[in-house]
Amino acid sequence: MRIDIISVVPDLIKSPFEGSIIQRAISKGHVEVFFHNLRDYTSNNYKQVDDYQYGGGAGMVMMIEPIDKCISKLKSERNYDEVIYMTPDGETLNQAMANQMSLLKNIIILCGHYKGVDQRVRDLFITKEISIGDYVLSGGELGAAILSDAIIRLIPGVLGNETSALTDSFQDNLLSPPIYTRPSNYKGHGVPQVLLSGHNQNVEKWRDDKALERTRNLRPDLLDE
Amino acid sequence: MRIDIISVVPDLIKSPFEGSIIQRAISKGHVEVFFHNLRDYTSNNYKQVDDYQYGGGAGMVMMIEPIDKCISKLKSERNYDEVIYMTPDGETLNQAMANQMSLLKNIIILCGHYKGVDQRVRDLFITKEISIGDYVLSGGELGAAILSDAIIRLIPGVLGNETSALTDSFQDNLLSPPIYTRPSNYKGHGVPQVLLSGHNQNVEKWRDDKALERTRNLRPDLLDE
Repeated sequence: MRIDIISVVPDLIKSPFEGSIIQRAISKGHVEVFFHNLRDYTSNNYKQVDDYQYGGGAGMVMMIEPIDKCISKLKSERNYDEVIYMTPDGETLNQAMANQMSLLKNIIILCGHYKGVDQRVRDLFITKEISIGDYVLSGGELGAAILSDAIIRLIPGVLGNETSALTDSFQDNLLSPPIYTRPSNYKGHGVPQVLLSGHNQNVEKWRDDKALERTRNLRPDLLDE
Repeated sequence: MRIDIISVVPDLIKSPFEGSIIQRAISKGHVEVFFHNLRDYTSNNYKQVDDYQYGGGAGMVMMIEPIDKCISKLKSERNYDEVIYMTPDGETLNQAMANQMSLLKNIIILCGHYKGVDQRVRDLFITKEISIGDYVLSGGELGAAILSDAIIRLIPGVLGNETSALTDSFQDNLLSPPIYTRPSNYKGHGVPQVLLSGHNQNVEKWRDDKALERTRNLRPDLLDE
């Protein structure tokens, strides 16, 4: 998979790609991630990428021309499955979407910053608008990092043990059961006996029960799906 | 406001705090952000922070002792309003929560990594569990960055013009209307005439109509709240 991230401040999200699972996925060749600075696609001397919004009001708007140039250059080099815009009014990301997108080959992720992008960018170039949640951020950069992380870890071979992702929350519309590790007694606080029993069938049943109980208590909406 | 972020891989999310609005909020003194590496709180020679889970299964679990030591040290130095754990089964973050939390003084954010933390950490030390959405990530680090960003930009004085945050999506349960900037004609694609009219009242009405229309089409659930 290849991910091209377009931003006016790409340095903001370089570190999430430089460690842990994502960095290993990149170094093993499961995914390539490229950052593109919109200022490299400006045609004026001031490398201006934003301007005041028509009709007045607070907040700068990202101009269409540098975005057009950057996306057009990328599209002239290869085919893209999706050109994604990270925006709070996009479709809300969930695990099913991440699963589907982990099968794509090439995607572009455009990060809004300031007040957002000129609407014509969305109308003309964007094939998919994604929100990571019902809150507003300084820009789409963290959203792009979130989307990339959610997708990349699902690419086969990225996680050492593939069952690790399959038992995560949401993969079966259930939250995860509680987990424990050593010591079995910490300052008087113990671990459920069943987990120490060595009886696999009882452990599985306890985990299934707890996952269902936790989901019923905390997120009954997931059970309706 | 002071934010203490606890992680096994704090370097992963340093860059989001080193640019744009968040960096300016820090340098202007609106917020202090400290990163704590759990490996500095281990008592064994290998700086071990995780171990296999009781009952078997894929994925490592973060041990209670280093987390206890780190949180206890911080709490001995000052009072905290909340000790937050980022987890997909927590309460889903939304703009109203971000608004409330932007008024807090000191918070700790604990990032899970690998399979998550020992359940006793959650039972004993955590006062609030937050999810940024229904998807699974490599760790809680990006979630902590998202939460920090969503909160910090709402602290009074952080955004240059305070109306900029007030007109964002979700602040009034409405999505934002479309925005445009120069040029007024880009390769034959124009800007709605009303925005060029200079007639403020018509502009406001158009924006209100569009915000409502967009919300009705894309997120009717917001209108029910």
